[in-house]
Amino acid sequence: MALSAPERLTFAELDQRADAACSAMLANTSIQVGQRVGLRAPNGVGYVVAVHALMRLGAVLVPISTRLSAAEVDWLLADAQVAHVLDEDQLQRLVGAPRATPRMRSFDLDAPHSVIYTSGTTGRPKGAVLTYDNHWSNALASMLNLGVQADDVWLACLPLFHVGGLAILLRSVIYGMPVVLHERFDAELVNAAIDHAGVSIVSVVSTMLERMLSARRDRPYPASLRCVLLGGGPAPLPLLERALAAGAPVMQTYGLTETASQVATLSPEDARRKIGSAGKPLFGTQVRIADDGEILVRGPVVSPAYLHHEPRGEWFSTGDLGYVDGEGYLYVHDRREDLIVTGGENVYPAEVEAVLLAHSSVAEAAVFGVPDAEWGQTVAAAIALRGPLNVEELRVFCRARLAGFKVPRRLVVLEALPRNAAGKILRRELRAAFST
Amino acid sequence: MALSAPERLTFAELDQRADAACSAMLANTSIQVGQRVGLRAPNGVGYVVAVHALMRLGAVLVPISTRLSAAEVDWLLADAQVAHVLDEDQLQRLVGAPRATPRMRSFDLDAPHSVIYTSGTTGRPKGAVLTYDNHWSNALASMLNLGVQADDVWLACLPLFHVGGLAILLRSVIYGMPVVLHERFDAELVNAAIDHAGVSIVSVVSTMLERMLSARRDRPYPASLRCVLLGGGPAPLPLLERALAAGAPVMQTYGLTETASQVATLSPEDARRKIGSAGKPLFGTQVRIADDGEILVRGPVVSPAYLHHEPRGEWFSTGDLGYVDGEGYLYVHDRREDLIVTGGENVYPAEVEAVLLAHSSVAEAAVFGVPDAEWGQTVAAAIALRGPLNVEELRVFCRARLAGFKVPRRLVVLEALPRNAAGKILRRELRAAFST
Repeated sequence: MALSAPERLTFAELDQRADAACSAMLANTSIQVGQRVGLRAPNGVGYVVAVHALMRLGAVLVPISTRLSAAEVDWLLADAQVAHVLDEDQLQRLVGAPRATPRMRSFDLDAPHSVIYTSGTTGRPKGAVLTYDNHWSNALASMLNLGVQADDVWLACLPLFHVGGLAILLRSVIYGMPVVLHERFDAELVNAAIDHAGVSIVSVVSTMLERMLSARRDRPYPASLRCVLLGGGPAPLPLLERALAAGAPVMQTYGLTETASQVATLSPEDARRKIGSAGKPLFGTQVRIADDGEILVRGPVVSPAYLHHEPRGEWFSTGDLGYVDGEGYLYVHDRREDLIVTGGENVYPAEVEAVLLAHSSVAEAAVFGVPDAEWGQTVAAAIALRGPLNVEELRVFCRARLAGFKVPRRLVVLEALPRNAAGKILRRELRAAFST
Repeated sequence: MALSAPERLTFAELDQRADAACSAMLANTSIQVGQRVGLRAPNGVGYVVAVHALMRLGAVLVPISTRLSAAEVDWLLADAQVAHVLDEDQLQRLVGAPRATPRMRSFDLDAPHSVIYTSGTTGRPKGAVLTYDNHWSNALASMLNLGVQADDVWLACLPLFHVGGLAILLRSVIYGMPVVLHERFDAELVNAAIDHAGVSIVSVVSTMLERMLSARRDRPYPASLRCVLLGGGPAPLPLLERALAAGAPVMQTYGLTETASQVATLSPEDARRKIGSAGKPLFGTQVRIADDGEILVRGPVVSPAYLHHEPRGEWFSTGDLGYVDGEGYLYVHDRREDLIVTGGENVYPAEVEAVLLAHSSVAEAAVFGVPDAEWGQTVAAAIALRGPLNVEELRVFCRARLAGFKVPRRLVVLEALPRNAAGKILRRELRAAFST
């Protein structure tokens, strides 16, 4: 792979570049304070500079996924009523402007910082308004959980248009902590950055972690790696154990766009003892489980509203199902919409997926419900393989570990499972494929 | 010295004891939410438990200095309109109560947490109302400056009835960080705790630091000591240099009761390069120098009001004089009321004190103005000695380093200088003694 030489910026240089980009935007656009500006660009220094320039301009950042189709982008721009869109070409043209005093030098915590569209695994995306306080409170609460050490370096290999990527940029300037930014996820490059660039914390989702471990054949990570923050949904226990065995101190986190990233995160001390849990709510955040099992969240990290929707109530309904154990640790099952009800019995896809993934031939697994005339829904599974599979043998394997109604009745084998940019499996697509 | 065995509490035990003490107070008193409760006790576990029990009771803590006279205490209790006073005997009686659900399990950041009377080096003390947000914001901002490491242990040897001591207790439960608590300052015990008990951070004032260094004859401190947080007013440069030479990473801080402790603190990276400075304002706090040189402060750490006074304006006037250098670092001179004006010239006591302290025979020095018919004020000095002194030789020493109008005209030699419980020199007493 051909690599361009990495670009390095000190905080002072970032400060200068952000001021200059702000001046250029003031000179060339008529963006007013409080107006929304779309940002559609790949991970890179230009993106980071733009995030800070928009803050100094008093504009509200609307990150746009680079994976959206033109029609989807058009819909989003209209929905967000953006005053302007910055793309990669425009970011280039902001470089080289003379530095000037920016419009904003301090920020009202209650002002909107960004509008981030939820990844939309179901229905139309909704724009979650995130205030400065939401991001600020999340950065500080994360710090109270993970600590901040003088030699910390956080690796960002998630897309910056996702809240998990953006949050790393904001923590960086709040903590005064270097960030290593990758254009896209590449397991070899992530491993190299951990081995040779002093990366102490990395944010990933399960698939990324699996690829990182496979790429190095589980060769141990150095002690300087003190946290692998694992988000993007419940992770299979065998993967967690495999990571810990390879010296990757994996800490599951439960986060949402609507909470400026982390809601709960396992702490370093609990990584082994509470494996499988997403940990305790971060300081200042409260989690409650509704009677139907839905996870509710309250606290300074929670978005005040979606665009064009009423402000939220006291508790934010996450749409995720889970429980809290006797010591206050959160375990996340599934999206409520992913819950399968078959013949009146509840089936949690994650439970069935964990069993499928425990089989040595199964690399990826997604379990979902498909309509069934007799049972209402029936359990279906899509899997990707790492070795030859005898389907009947897999069924016996599942039957030995699961109640009969939980064993998948329908099975499809794919090259790889469809995922969104955040690495989440697109169950909706799988369901749709099965239902037609 | 006879020492009782140290008492150790885990966070879980502190939690239980605080709940139990809260239950006992609910059963035995009629303290209502929002009422003020005096706490007059020496440093100890009972004090720590009471601080948390009062929070869970919804009461507002009013710490009372153990050094006040009965008449002063009476005045303060009346001024604060306290509903109840807890003394050492009563703290004893709170032990052993059964644990029960406390009244308050979460806290409104805008609610008052404590009313702390300013040490009152001039005039009547005033009760500064400190909200939960003031303390919370200070703890987080301190964390952003100093970082929090997994093995941090903070030594509290300041009185807990001062904001500097109380702040350590609150940081402890916010960070999940052990505190070593000493009943009173003892240089040998502080040194022993640093050498043998893993203390990584200690809060002291200049006199304490001087005694710590002298007690170990400047023998180097271990690398585990990562921060000596030095408050209580401007420190003499020779002491700072001596501390750094002994491996004590001293970081000057500028703090006030009215700001829940730190306003600005030198960061570890700047300890040597910016020696003599109190550093940059903590994140979220803004410092401005008024036209007359007074330091003004704004931000979430600033008390909303003194009891029985109007709420403060946008900027809090500290009464201290200082300046900010080109890189944004704060240097604190003196209290404005300590500024000496002689024949129209301004004399900063700290500048003259620094020269006196640079003389090998001078252990302590305080410089202040006394009324003078000809010049308005004239410069006077009180000193304590560490060796024999030729007064004329000291005058020549000063004259070589200071403009003539700054050289003390009157000099008194004392055994030791009068100080308040926080270690601050009581210039008012010295001035009064000279003026009569």
